[in-house]
Amino acid sequence: MVNANVFLKCENFQRVGAFKFRGAFNAISQLPSEEKSKGVITFSSGNHAQAVALVGKILGIKTIIVMPNNAPKIKRSATEGYGAEIIEYDPAEQQREEIAKRIRKEKGYTLIPPFDHEDIIAGQGTAALELLEETKHLDYLLVPCGGGGLLSGSAIAVKGFNSKCKVIGIEPEVADDAVKSFRTKVLHRVKNPPTIADGTRTTSLGKITFPLVLKYVDDMQTVTEQSIIDAVKFLFFRMKLVVEPSGALGMAALLSGAVKLNGRIGVIISGGNVDAETMMMILSA
Amino acid sequence: MVNANVFLKCENFQRVGAFKFRGAFNAISQLPSEEKSKGVITFSSGNHAQAVALVGKILGIKTIIVMPNNAPKIKRSATEGYGAEIIEYDPAEQQREEIAKRIRKEKGYTLIPPFDHEDIIAGQGTAALELLEETKHLDYLLVPCGGGGLLSGSAIAVKGFNSKCKVIGIEPEVADDAVKSFRTKVLHRVKNPPTIADGTRTTSLGKITFPLVLKYVDDMQTVTEQSIIDAVKFLFFRMKLVVEPSGALGMAALLSGAVKLNGRIGVIISGGNVDAETMMMILSA
Repeated sequence: MVNANVFLKCENFQRVGAFKFRGAFNAISQLPSEEKSKGVITFSSGNHAQAVALVGKILGIKTIIVMPNNAPKIKRSATEGYGAEIIEYDPAEQQREEIAKRIRKEKGYTLIPPFDHEDIIAGQGTAALELLEETKHLDYLLVPCGGGGLLSGSAIAVKGFNSKCKVIGIEPEVADDAVKSFRTKVLHRVKNPPTIADGTRTTSLGKITFPLVLKYVDDMQTVTEQSIIDAVKFLFFRMKLVVEPSGALGMAALLSGAVKLNGRIGVIISGGNVDAETMMMILSA
Repeated sequence: MVNANVFLKCENFQRVGAFKFRGAFNAISQLPSEEKSKGVITFSSGNHAQAVALVGKILGIKTIIVMPNNAPKIKRSATEGYGAEIIEYDPAEQQREEIAKRIRKEKGYTLIPPFDHEDIIAGQGTAALELLEETKHLDYLLVPCGGGGLLSGSAIAVKGFNSKCKVIGIEPEVADDAVKSFRTKVLHRVKNPPTIADGTRTTSLGKITFPLVLKYVDDMQTVTEQSIIDAVKFLFFRMKLVVEPSGALGMAALLSGAVKLNGRIGVIISGGNVDAETMMMILSA
């Protein structure tokens, strides 16, 4: 279909159903024991929340998650299932970072941010590393981009393994802050973008991820909402994989022709946490 | 959840999205060249049809498929996509075997039956064989049962590998002809049973599969329609696997408690060809 060999890294099969477990475990497990004993807090639209909650459960650390009131139900209930305390906010009116900051001060919990943290970035990069170790050689790697944690971590892993492999970040067209930031070298922001790919609704790249993306990523491209829907359907019907919209960005870029590549192409399928409502909308589209 | 180690053999990832490719290839590739040059015909509710059509395409052999007019759309269109000629029939009024027999006489095509054929049975058994080779040791293997091709092939493979591993066939409660046949040792039939597991709507076990099931299968159990739906949802939400209702029978038996087992349990996930309509019904159930 795309005249290339395509290798999927199926992070929908990862614990909590997304790559986010990698970064959360890497960051939290390295905290000093004093910080561990107090607890950790984070803000997240979903998969990072579940990851922090599960790592907290595994390591016996209290967790608080600041979560938007429009987060997918499946992500919220899974997070609660791991024993985390959830604090809701309205993304149209409140900044999640500020809420987390306030609680952090009040309770002394350590903040585990969703992407802008070196240990998080290093952890997320292990997905690309594993794919490279398994496939030995790739010409390209396509990576979804929200806040840039997975993208910058992947790019660092790729360039350390084989500097000739090109890393391309993929972002929804209606949430193209990172593409604009990459092209202009000036940080762009987007507010609550109307994309089905809920994992990429982040405001912007971070203080740490933005320079890393500029340094290690070779290119960035956008994909339409329709192409994301088509990719989720392709993965469902042809590959028999349940993939959330954010996780299908790389396949959307390939199948829609937004990127035209030959050779051996790796694609990070970043997660599979899609709720029934969203999948039914996609299947009937 | 079930107090056991469970190993899934994901035949939803097999070519044509189901185990049926194994038997069809094994049977058709062994035909004498004179029969190959004329063509092959089969009757099937879906996955066997796709398998025969694909094998025909791979080996350059003409294929005719006799298919019920209520077959899932996705299976019909995939079969057509492989270049097979499709002849429809009304399962409420016509016997597919008779239609296939008539065309076979008229055109001289070789019949490749969906299950009651030694080469088909041997081919289907390779899924269980691969699972055993990979897991080394299993205490139980759960296998969906329609016409008994997969079940008898799996049981032969299991008993040849490790005679202590118990093989349990799983059938929908509303299509329990094979369970009754197994328990009474007299062949029972069921006509067009109203199960969501369309791969198990076969009338009865076959002349070859029935004695094999009696000889090699250790037990058989039924599962309710609700437990099949619940299992498809579990595989979707927790395992991120797209599995068709028939493919979820083993998990339905485990999760519902229809079978209560400990140790190392293999489960044949027989296929993943579910259409949008059926999956939407399941996700909203």
